[in-house]
Amino acid sequence: MSTRERIVDAAEQAIREFGISGATTKRIARAAGCSEALLYKHFDGKEALFLAVLLERMPALAPALARLRLAAGQGDLAADLTRFVLAALEFYTRAATIASGMLADPSLLARFRHMLATTNTGPHMPILSLAEILAAERRAGRTDPGLDPGAAASLLMGACYHRANLSYFVDPPDKDEDWAAGVVAAVLRR
Amino acid sequence: MSTRERIVDAAEQAIREFGISGATTKRIARAAGCSEALLYKHFDGKEALFLAVLLERMPALAPALARLRLAAGQGDLAADLTRFVLAALEFYTRAATIASGMLADPSLLARFRHMLATTNTGPHMPILSLAEILAAERRAGRTDPGLDPGAAASLLMGACYHRANLSYFVDPPDKDEDWAAGVVAAVLRR
Repeated sequence: MSTRERIVDAAEQAIREFGISGATTKRIARAAGCSEALLYKHFDGKEALFLAVLLERMPALAPALARLRLAAGQGDLAADLTRFVLAALEFYTRAATIASGMLADPSLLARFRHMLATTNTGPHMPILSLAEILAAERRAGRTDPGLDPGAAASLLMGACYHRANLSYFVDPPDKDEDWAAGVVAAVLRR
Repeated sequence: MSTRERIVDAAEQAIREFGISGATTKRIARAAGCSEALLYKHFDGKEALFLAVLLERMPALAPALARLRLAAGQGDLAADLTRFVLAALEFYTRAATIASGMLADPSLLARFRHMLATTNTGPHMPILSLAEILAAERRAGRTDPGLDPGAAASLLMGACYHRANLSYFVDPPDKDEDWAAGVVAAVLRR
């Protein structure tokens, strides 16, 4: 395993054990068996390292979006969207500790925000991707012609993100599968 | 101003300056001009104190829900819901630092989760309240008869919560007012 991989693994483990604020580069470097200087050779800072954990170690949204895009124009749209909603819920649930830890740490957040702005990316991208897919489905006549793809994507991704966060505070009253089918049906109105 | 009020003010200020992890009871007690022992007489722990800040010092969801309930059955439902969505967005934006700080701190989260379970409350309650209001509007014939009040409430509250959190990482591409009107229209389909 490369040094970089060992560092990402150690960071994931440290976040799980100690939370973002306790996952220091000192602790991560020691667990990865390297110096802090070497860690900083691979990652500009904690924000870049934590982003790597998010994108490389969590069940990612990108594959779920790719599956949805591949299935566009065929099959059962409601069933495909429900599967996607469950994948997004799982991703946001796993990502919640890192995302919240970044948001709650003013200086880490400022650096992360700057990094996102310079790379022209961010956590809003999945909404845009889902909106594109829904627009294609509408053009193919597979949704209500009155569907607003941007609003529908904002609602669906938001509902997943919110439920993922809520589940840390309270047990949801309903099963994930039933909930997912319900929000998809409400957006598609079919 | 009572000691309790001074403590809640000091806690709000400390969270804003230092984040949840830096808002220690020692620091808060000193700023409030009281001992830590007196602070603990008023609040069982940080989790109870931070909940008081959330409920007593932030523009709360409860008044916005009450306004919506009062307006039920009359006036322009889409306009009223859009106003409510903007109020929820503002609340979640202000509450994000505290909510994220709790979620990112494993031991604080465990105590907060326990406190919520014993008081039978939690951050999911606004979804249930909004669902009740939407069910009443549907009974009054003011929505599509096919509207699913629970799913619609989950989608709307989720979209607000998500956008509030996203705004800490990236600037939204659209205006809050336009976005709010769009998600409400997508849920009501009118």
